[in-house]
Amino acid sequence: MTASADDYRWMARALVLAERGLFTTTPNPRVGCVIVRDGAIVGEGWHVRAGEPHAEVHALAMAGEAARGATAYVTLEPCSHHGRTPPCADALVKAGVARVVAAMEDPNPLVAGRGLARLRDAGIETLSGVQEAQARELNIGFVSRMTRGRPWLRLKVAATLDGKTALDNGVSQWITGDDARRDAHRWRARSCAVLTGIGTVRDDDPQLTVRAIPTERQPLRVVVDARLETPLNAKLLDGGKVLIAGAVDQPERIAALQRRGADVVILPNDGGKVDLNALMLELGRRGINEVLAESGFKLNGSLLREGCVDELVLYLAPSLVGDAARGLFNLPALTSLQDKRQLVFHDIRQIGPDLRILARPA
Amino acid sequence: MTASADDYRWMARALVLAERGLFTTTPNPRVGCVIVRDGAIVGEGWHVRAGEPHAEVHALAMAGEAARGATAYVTLEPCSHHGRTPPCADALVKAGVARVVAAMEDPNPLVAGRGLARLRDAGIETLSGVQEAQARELNIGFVSRMTRGRPWLRLKVAATLDGKTALDNGVSQWITGDDARRDAHRWRARSCAVLTGIGTVRDDDPQLTVRAIPTERQPLRVVVDARLETPLNAKLLDGGKVLIAGAVDQPERIAALQRRGADVVILPNDGGKVDLNALMLELGRRGINEVLAESGFKLNGSLLREGCVDELVLYLAPSLVGDAARGLFNLPALTSLQDKRQLVFHDIRQIGPDLRILARPA
Repeated sequence: MTASADDYRWMARALVLAERGLFTTTPNPRVGCVIVRDGAIVGEGWHVRAGEPHAEVHALAMAGEAARGATAYVTLEPCSHHGRTPPCADALVKAGVARVVAAMEDPNPLVAGRGLARLRDAGIETLSGVQEAQARELNIGFVSRMTRGRPWLRLKVAATLDGKTALDNGVSQWITGDDARRDAHRWRARSCAVLTGIGTVRDDDPQLTVRAIPTERQPLRVVVDARLETPLNAKLLDGGKVLIAGAVDQPERIAALQRRGADVVILPNDGGKVDLNALMLELGRRGINEVLAESGFKLNGSLLREGCVDELVLYLAPSLVGDAARGLFNLPALTSLQDKRQLVFHDIRQIGPDLRILARPA
Repeated sequence: MTASADDYRWMARALVLAERGLFTTTPNPRVGCVIVRDGAIVGEGWHVRAGEPHAEVHALAMAGEAARGATAYVTLEPCSHHGRTPPCADALVKAGVARVVAAMEDPNPLVAGRGLARLRDAGIETLSGVQEAQARELNIGFVSRMTRGRPWLRLKVAATLDGKTALDNGVSQWITGDDARRDAHRWRARSCAVLTGIGTVRDDDPQLTVRAIPTERQPLRVVVDARLETPLNAKLLDGGKVLIAGAVDQPERIAALQRRGADVVILPNDGGKVDLNALMLELGRRGINEVLAESGFKLNGSLLREGCVDELVLYLAPSLVGDAARGLFNLPALTSLQDKRQLVFHDIRQIGPDLRILARPA
């Protein structure tokens, strides 16, 4: 059977609920659930934190007996396995719902469809794919980790309209305005990890924490630091989780960083630098769904060259500083425009006086 | 008295009509006129070409006797002087209209308000300022010439998302797509002049004519060419009007260019280059309202430095080529971000796969 206009409407509500977990569900996906009977919501809920009940459990608890014969809308196929909580498919069967509409199947190809099959086996009518594109966007990092074993990496850069991130003398603060800064902290808050390079740590000594907006969870900070040169008095070592990715096995230096609370992984490539793709897989293993890279000219270029960038978050300020200033990406000189890196614009909007462009590889 | 919702509605129609003259009225402004009686249009018209009747004349001819007691909507204050055609204020009086609503007064401060005064003296009710912002935008170049004695200069640049206009080896063709190219030809078609530098003439040998869209009028081509080095076999000398702006008085070279049909002006500054502000005033004297600069890195920088740029028309392609490629503007290195050139975004839209940004000095 096909989806009705009402199916879209209730799924839209379930997506709004799911988004309430944007900053907190990590490493779990953001999921919302709405239970509808006779054209009215009788229960709704969303997943708040890993280890706590799933969206369906909250919604069923609210609905109580009213769930019997109702339709449940879920933004992700109900789970069919025992994790930290019992399977939601079983809970839906037990509650007696008549129909389950899912926005998308489980992105893990090994389990996709099993939850819905379990429901059908119990005589429940199922439908999947309602507002699927929106649901996939909401959990783009979780989907990436399930399907590719690595997080979705966003590269954030702020530049002037002539593509400059800093003056020739390194001055870079406040190219963009307060609104763009707050917006960038929203991207940090939804990310499981913020990634930067040793150059930025040395030059700017950033904290890389979410401060401009409220959040109850801080992302892991990851530093690409081939020679383990992160200063022991770096601000980002002053609290919260830090992972240093190095390329040289120097036990004393590693121990010193560990004493400052940092975790260290050594992932060298053939050139003696950090193998960025290996790092992405390592982050995937650690349950990292979304990474926000806030790095400089060099690491930006390396991430692009090694194919690690899934999305560019580019803030453009309405100002010009001229060609003597520093550019966005350190990439080898091209001899033909055929070799340019082709992207597509995904979203464009004004953020205060600045422009924010989301672009993805074509 | 204040404007009614109907006044805005009819003025919107008059503005649509005025815009039909976008490519043709030069050096005159684009003007539309709607005559309304008993809630219905009885006459409408627009100015098509200099030397031909003004918008009011067309609209009055269509309305005939129905103009008596009607309201006339005009996007620009009716003229009160004898030019190539008799004054429109007199024609409106003679036709017996009861009320005249203008979007804006004549931008020439020496004559502003005289047309409306003449109408009021004849007992006609007048109102000015309805949709004034829209009317000013439509004639932004004419307003500039009337108030500042110089045209409105738009600087058009096509760049990659990392702010590059060409590869290091000079390859620059097809950074942006066909839609952006057609859009750029629209800007050319509405301009009285297209301006470029000798570097672009030498490197690209462009025609700088409107070809991608239909138009009956080609803009004047202006070349900033301090040492009068435009090759005599340059394509832009093969037809249509050309003005070469030089800085050295070389009678033989001037005569050779003139024999190829070019007009030559010598406007040196103290540095032996073309005085760009003097050139703008010269173009104003020649009745040029809007100029589209399609120049390279160097002239772009000079135009910006000398304060000649009123608007930036920036096409951004969704691609990256890296920092080795050529940038947008040759500007002296800044030591403080306080010294950046501050703009404001005026309009942002997608043109095919590319982005078009209009920005103006703050």
